[in-house]
Amino acid sequence: MKKREYPLGKVYGLLEPGPVVLLTTQKAGTPNVMAQSWHMMLDFEPALVACVVSNRNYSFAALRETKQCVINIPTAKLAREVVSCGNVSGRHVNKFKKFGLTPIAGEVVDVPMIAECYANLECRVVDTRMVRRYGVFVLHVVRAWVDSETKWARTLHHQGKGEFMVAGRRLKLPSKKK
Amino acid sequence: MKKREYPLGKVYGLLEPGPVVLLTTQKAGTPNVMAQSWHMMLDFEPALVACVVSNRNYSFAALRETKQCVINIPTAKLAREVVSCGNVSGRHVNKFKKFGLTPIAGEVVDVPMIAECYANLECRVVDTRMVRRYGVFVLHVVRAWVDSETKWARTLHHQGKGEFMVAGRRLKLPSKKK
Repeated sequence: MKKREYPLGKVYGLLEPGPVVLLTTQKAGTPNVMAQSWHMMLDFEPALVACVVSNRNYSFAALRETKQCVINIPTAKLAREVVSCGNVSGRHVNKFKKFGLTPIAGEVVDVPMIAECYANLECRVVDTRMVRRYGVFVLHVVRAWVDSETKWARTLHHQGKGEFMVAGRRLKLPSKKK
Repeated sequence: MKKREYPLGKVYGLLEPGPVVLLTTQKAGTPNVMAQSWHMMLDFEPALVACVVSNRNYSFAALRETKQCVINIPTAKLAREVVSCGNVSGRHVNKFKKFGLTPIAGEVVDVPMIAECYANLECRVVDTRMVRRYGVFVLHVVRAWVDSETKWARTLHHQGKGEFMVAGRRLKLPSKKK
C-alpha cells in the first residue's frame, strides 16, 4: 500500500462514519493493538477525537503514560485480525506478531502504525480530564496517512459480539454542511 | 412502523456502528431536529452516550435547559430529510412540519420522537461538565424503541458534505467481546 499524507482538515470524514479502528500504542518498546469503536470527532481543525479506553484495557497505561497513539482504520479484508485483536489481551501476546500485522514507524509519534490499514492517524493525547470518570481520552491528530489507491474503503462497523456491517453503496446529496 | 421496547443493555449495538442520527429536542413547546454524527457510547449499562452539540446549534439551548432529548436513528429512506435537517436552522423553521416528519410523544421525556426513524432513544442529560470546552453532553438512554419489522437497518453514515455510505452486507465472526 502506498500511503500519502492526508490533510488534517479532512480527517473527520474518515472517522465520522463510525468505522471500527485499531488503536496502536507503545510502552517501553512493547507495542499493542486494540480494537475500538467508541470514538467520535470533537473538532474539525485542529482535528480532535474523543475515544474511550477503559483502565481494564492493556492499552490504558501506555496511552496515559506516553500520551501517544495511532488510530489505524482497517477495511473488511482485515475483519479476522480485528476480531482476533479484540479477543486477546496485549498483556499476553504481541498482537503485531501473532496476527501478522506489519508495523511501520510513525513520523511524529513513537508508536507503530499498521501497514495493512488503509488509513493511519498519528495522535497525541491532549486532555485526560475525562479519563477517570469515563475513560475518555482527547486526541489531537497531528499527522494523517491514507492509501492512495483505496478510492472507496470497505470499512467495518461493529454491531456487537463480532457482528459487523460492511460499508455499502454511496449516496451524495446537496449539502451546505461540512 | 410498529415499535417495540428495546432492552437498554443492547442499545450500544445501535450506535456503535456510527450511524448519522436525528437529535430531537423541545423547548417551550417548540420542537427541533438536528442531524448529528458526532456521538459515541460511553458505557453499556447504564447506556451512556456522549454527543457533541455546539453552542452555534439551535438545539444547544433546549438541550442545556430541558436536559432531555431523543436520539432518532434513520435509515437510507430518510436520506433527503437528514440532509434537509442539516441544511436549515430550527431558529427559522419547524423541521417536523417542513420535512414531513411525524412526531410521537416520548414516554419518559417531554420531547417528540420521529415516527419515521427505525429506532428512538429517549435520553436525559446527566453530565454537562464537558459542554463548555467541547460541546459534549453525556446522555443516559432511559427508554429505547425499535421497529419490530426492520431486521437489517440500512443506516446512513456521513462522510462529510452530504456524502453518505449506506450500511452494506453483514459479517459475523466468533468473538468473546460484547
